[in-house]
Parts: sequence; C-alpha cells; structure tokens
Amino acid sequence: MSPKIKFDKWTDLYAKRTVALRSSAIRDLFIVASRPDIISFAGGMPDTRSLPMEMIAEATKKVLRKEGAAALQYGSSEGHPGLRECILKLLAEDDIHTDLDDIIITDGGQQALDLLGKIFIDPNDTIIVEGPSYVGAIQAFSGYQANMISVPLDENGLSIDSLSQTLGDLKKRNQKAKFIYLVPSFSNPAGVTLSPERREALLKITKKHDLLVIEDDPYSRLKFGGGKIPTLRSMDDSLIYMGTFSKIFSPGMRLGWITAPKPIIEKLNFAKQASNLCSSSFTQRIVEEYFTNYPWQSYLEKQTALYKERRDIMLKSLEKFFPSDARWTKPEGGLFLWVTLPKFINTAELLAKSINEAKVAYVPGEAFFADGSGKNCMRLNFSYPNKEQVAEGIKRLGELIKSQTKLYKTFTGKLRLNND
Amino acid sequence: MSPKIKFDKWTDLYAKRTVALRSSAIRDLFIVASRPDIISFAGGMPDTRSLPMEMIAEATKKVLRKEGAAALQYGSSEGHPGLRECILKLLAEDDIHTDLDDIIITDGGQQALDLLGKIFIDPNDTIIVEGPSYVGAIQAFSGYQANMISVPLDENGLSIDSLSQTLGDLKKRNQKAKFIYLVPSFSNPAGVTLSPERREALLKITKKHDLLVIEDDPYSRLKFGGGKIPTLRSMDDSLIYMGTFSKIFSPGMRLGWITAPKPIIEKLNFAKQASNLCSSSFTQRIVEEYFTNYPWQSYLEKQTALYKERRDIMLKSLEKFFPSDARWTKPEGGLFLWVTLPKFINTAELLAKSINEAKVAYVPGEAFFADGSGKNCMRLNFSYPNKEQVAEGIKRLGELIKSQTKLYKTFTGKLRLNND
Repeated sequence: MSPKIKFDKWTDLYAKRTVALRSSAIRDLFIVASRPDIISFAGGMPDTRSLPMEMIAEATKKVLRKEGAAALQYGSSEGHPGLRECILKLLAEDDIHTDLDDIIITDGGQQALDLLGKIFIDPNDTIIVEGPSYVGAIQAFSGYQANMISVPLDENGLSIDSLSQTLGDLKKRNQKAKFIYLVPSFSNPAGVTLSPERREALLKITKKHDLLVIEDDPYSRLKFGGGKIPTLRSMDDSLIYMGTFSKIFSPGMRLGWITAPKPIIEKLNFAKQASNLCSSSFTQRIVEEYFTNYPWQSYLEKQTALYKERRDIMLKSLEKFFPSDARWTKPEGGLFLWVTLPKFINTAELLAKSINEAKVAYVPGEAFFADGSGKNCMRLNFSYPNKEQVAEGIKRLGELIKSQTKLYKTFTGKLRLNND
Repeated sequence: MSPKIKFDKWTDLYAKRTVALRSSAIRDLFIVASRPDIISFAGGMPDTRSLPMEMIAEATKKVLRKEGAAALQYGSSEGHPGLRECILKLLAEDDIHTDLDDIIITDGGQQALDLLGKIFIDPNDTIIVEGPSYVGAIQAFSGYQANMISVPLDENGLSIDSLSQTLGDLKKRNQKAKFIYLVPSFSNPAGVTLSPERREALLKITKKHDLLVIEDDPYSRLKFGGGKIPTLRSMDDSLIYMGTFSKIFSPGMRLGWITAPKPIIEKLNFAKQASNLCSSSFTQRIVEEYFTNYPWQSYLEKQTALYKERRDIMLKSLEKFFPSDARWTKPEGGLFLWVTLPKFINTAELLAKSINEAKVAYVPGEAFFADGSGKNCMRLNFSYPNKEQVAEGIKRLGELIKSQTKLYKTFTGKLRLNND
C-alpha cells in the first residue's frame, strides 16, 4: 500500500473529477493478491501461465525481421490495418459484419471505456449500467462525472421490466440517458448471460427510446458448452461493440477494439490521439502474427477447459462449504461468479479478516455499484487460482462466513435469518 | 483520409469537450507523410531503422522465458518496478533524485499529458504554455477545455519578461493559472533551449507566484555537443517532470513516465487506472531488459550522430535555398527546427501545393498555438528523412516559397517585404 499522504499542498489545484477518481478496491487488491500466502479470487486475470512462450518469442522475432522499423515506430491512432483485418475475421465468426474503417484499436477494454466516456459524458449526464456492473466501467465513467443509474440483473441478465420502468421514469422527468452500458455474455461481475428473448426485448425497447447501446463482450469466447448466443451487435448494427485480446490471448499486450458507426469512430479517433496517440505498433504486430499464423484457438480451448474445471470445483465447494442461506450464480462461461450472502454480512468489512485470517481475497460487492448497493455480495474469480486453491480457498472462506453467521446469531438470538 | 461523414445522428449525444477534440494537422499528415513519393519533414519520428532488431528479439525471448506469464498478464497501474528502477538510474544521471514510488509509467509522453490534464484541468481553467507549444499538449489540454495562454519564445527559450507580465496580469484580475507546461530543452516545435540564466529566473518567478511547473523533457539526451544544461527538476524537486522512451529507444513500445511529488503521483495513479489500467507488462519488461543488458547508449549515440548530420544539411540547405527574409532556429539537439517566413505567406494554405507540387510535407505553424498565431511559420523535422531527402526536400520547399514570394511581389508591386 502506498504510504499515507500527510499534507497535500496541491489540493486547490486538482480538477473536480478527481473527487470521483479514487483507487478501486480491485487495484488495492492487486497488491494483496500477489502475496504468495494468499489464495486470490479477487483478480480478473486469465491464466497466462499456459500460453506458448516460445511461439510468442518466435512471432516477435518474425515481426522484427520483417517490419522491425515500423513495429518500433509510431502508428496511426485508428490502429495497424493488419490487426484490424484479424479483428474483422474474429467478428465475422460472430456474425458481426463491419468495415475496416469502423474499427479502432484501444489499449484493452479499459481504454475503450475511457474513450467512450470522453466523447459522450458531460458532468451530470445520465447513463444506465447494470447492477452490478463492471468496476472498471464505473471508474471510467465516474471520471467524467456521470450520473449512473443501475438496472438490476437476475440469472437471465438485465431485467427488461426494470429497464422499461427506468426509461419511462426518465421520460416523465424529461430526461434522457446518453447510453446504456452492459456486458451481456458471462457478465463481469455477475457471471450471468442475457437470454436470447431478453436480447430481442432489449433492442426493441432501446430502439423505442432511441437509446444508444454499448455492448462490452470480453468473455463470449470463454464458453463452457451449450449453443451460441447471438451478440447484440449481430442483431443491430447501430450499436457500439467492444472486444479485447486480454481474455482470448494476453492482457499484457494491452489491445482491445471498438466497432461503431463511422461518425462515432471518428470522434473516438480524436479522443484516442489526445489520450495516447496510438496503441503499441509492436504488440499490435505481434498479436496480428500470432492470430494469423499460430494455433491460438487450441490454446484458448485449453484455457477455457481449465476455467470450466475450476468453475465446477468452485460450484461444488460453494455447495459444500457455504451457508445454506447464501446464493450464487452458475456461469456458463467467463471468469466470475457472484455470491449473495445474508444481509447482515458486510463483505467489505469482512475482507480484512478474510485476508489476514483465512488468507483468501475476493472483491466486495459494493465495488460494482455506483450507489453503494451490494454490501452483502462478493465477486469470485475462478480463472486464475488452480484447482487445489479453488477448493481450499472456498472451504476457508465458507468457514469464515459461517463463523460470522454464528457470531451474528449469538448477538441477535435469531434462529432463522432473513435473507431478503 | 477518412470519408466525409454526411449525417451524424448522434450529434446531440456528444460531450461538449468533443468540440475541441479535433484531428490534429499532425495526424492527418501521418497518412500523407507515409506516401513513398513525399519527402516528409512533418513527423516527429526517431529513426527506428537503425535499432538492433536481433537484440530486441533476443531480449523479448529472455523476458518470455524468465517471466513470460507475468509479461503477458495485467500489471500494476504505477508500472513494473524493474522498469522504474531503470528510470531511477536514467534520472540520477541527470541529477534528478527521486523515489521508486514517485514514478508512474505512462503510455508515452502523450498519456502523461492526458493524465495531467485529467487531474488538474476543469473546463475554463487557465494554464500557461509556450508559444509555440507541443501540438500533442495543446490537443490533450484542449480535451479538458483549458483556457491556454501562450508566452512567447525566442532563441533562448521562454521569455521570462513575458511570463512575468502574464502572471502579473492574471494576479490583477484575481486569477491563477493551474500550471505552466514547457519543453525547456530542444523544444518541440521550436528547437530552442531555455538558457541556464532563464532557468534560474523561471523557477524564481514560478515560486513567487506559487505556480506549478510541468517540465517535459523528451529530447535532452539527443544533444549534438556542448555542455550539459541542468534540468529544471534537478534545480527544484517540487515540480512535475516527464520523460519518455520514445525518442531514446522506440515509440512503438508506448512507454514514458512522470516523476512528481507523492500526492500528485497518487492522483495520477487513479487517473491511469480509469484510463487504461496499466501500461503493457510485456513492453515494460522488454525495455527493462534492453536498458539493463544491452548497449542502448551506443545505438542512441549513432542515432544522435545521424540527426546532427541531417540538421547540418538542413541548416546549410535553408541558407542556400530559402529566401533571405526567412528566419529559422539553430537547434543544438532534438528533432525539430522552426522556420518563420514573411507575414504574407500562410503555411497552412501553402501545404496542399507543397504536397501536390513540391512533394514535401511539413507542419504548419498554427498547429502549435491555441490562439491561431504562427500562420507564417512551419515546423521541420530532421530526424527521419535521410541526408539526400533533407537536401532535396529543402531545395524544393525553398523554390516553392520563392515562387510564392515572387507571385506576391507581382500582385503587390512591393520591392521590399516587411517581415515584422
């Protein structure tokens, strides 16, 4: 942890948005989660240990021999055309058809969120997010001083009834949301997927209210089985679609993308220039080489099989070790599941005990809400810890939660707990 | 060039800041400048053709073998400690002594400017920049809707008298600038260096007015001879200092840094998380390896010798082919020089002719002013075109300018031109 700052003589100079720009629970947890004695369910990290290091070294060597001067040079802000060609092919596999010019390369999904915030959000603008929503999105949009309205999720994704009511309420007040942001497949943090019926309904209602949709889709290729669910973008080409190489290859490359209608891409391009000129010409060419000439699918399949195995163990262990009044989602893909505990448990308060005594890290639920909800929830990641760690970590966490429950019962004398 | 957009149905949704976020002349020129028939003085590119490709491939292989999983993973937002250690050593060579914790890694200098804008600038805040100033800084700060005041430069850098007057005027109006941003060594675009006397005077006056100083120092290691000039940061450790690997190694790695007092670094860290989480773990480790175990200095010396040779030819050619009433700076390092032409020449208007007829690209001077000044000026880059291109390009550009001068004289009948 960084040392506490006693006196900040520059306080008067900071912009108003810095009030909202605070360290996320996730970032602080990066530090704790890297301690070797901690079993961490806190990160959002793919398992990079299983990637083919020699192949990546070879791909790099090829790039440097073939076009080293360009790979080490500045590039265009929209991104290397060769990499955008790769993305076109990936998108086509998901029935998304777009132009090379309608794709902009970003520094992973996080920069995509920042650029979208930069071009759309004025202070106090209303936007709609899922409740719970991706913490990085909340952070990025908070930086632009957005007024975020959360629409709740259930096991079939975003509640369309709640969305309908929210949009109706806004209309009554003569207000309009700038956009709705959602992760419809294997969502972060909830691990739930918007059902095909709700996808239809969502697009119908957003069309009716003329509401711009931002579909963030980092996880749909990390699927544990079952049929293909169409992306929203494949059903409506007027929306904004975000993808990333972080989960299907490597977050260390810092590469993602946005595809959107041309006028929006142009605005994003100006924002990108002002933000960091261009993404790395070097990593863009390495990823292009890797996705063109190496068996990336087979490594992704191996990784996804690992994640499935770990999810299975996590679900089994939750069943075995968590109290009977706890609930959790059953994700069919992705990296996360979401646990809801009895109301009297505050997961943020429990975290210090969990780290110090149980030696287990997770992300408290309130990090995923802009309005302080989710205090009795937690996000658990199953992609990074190995099988044994998953089983052991859930056991320890379950025991800790049970001991808290027992303590609570002792204090309150209640025999039955209200979990509503 | 991107196709013209006829109808943008999202116009009502864009944030106010997008009005200022426009394509820079530089970005449009990237596209033109890459045409093989054009001699381009427009870029700001180091000569990456002379970098040791095999060594970089080897360094990458070592990183992947030694710590591949970490190199391909997310990293901390402040940056890889190993790379920050390298930066500490580089800084110490310039008599800058700081802590590892007081350094944050950025995606090149451009992201450093964006993050500084993000934490300091509210709409309409006043900041002070050089006239002319770096176009990327103008773009980044414009994105935060800053009110920029330009203080003029001469051959010894920023005019301290003008700065004093500007600060006095602000004080009289009960206003305060958030910071002053300057490139004191081999400035971009002017190619001038703030003299040691003026450095003393600058720090005295900024201290008196309690004005925060941002020193951007990408070029001081690209020095063509002469004694060492102390960085402002080595004279005052309360200021913000920016550095980058883009000019001493490779812009394709997208790595730079800021060192600043701890409270400011903490704010920058939050802004970095919201902007793109972290810089590439992969390129950070490769640059660490290259700067630790490879003879980077000798490659930089070779590059700098190349730039010096090209500057010499550019100065000689300007003398020979440019009209006698043109003036230009004589940089002792860096990548750029600045040409001032007679007032009746508008370099932005001349650019199309220059590209289409003379097949030479440059950046029109007005790109470097927030207030539309500099219309008779141009920035010329001498680091990227080779010797023959420099000689030929300046010859063609000189002939074009002389033909314009002749045309003007024909129209106005003036025999002597007023260059004031």
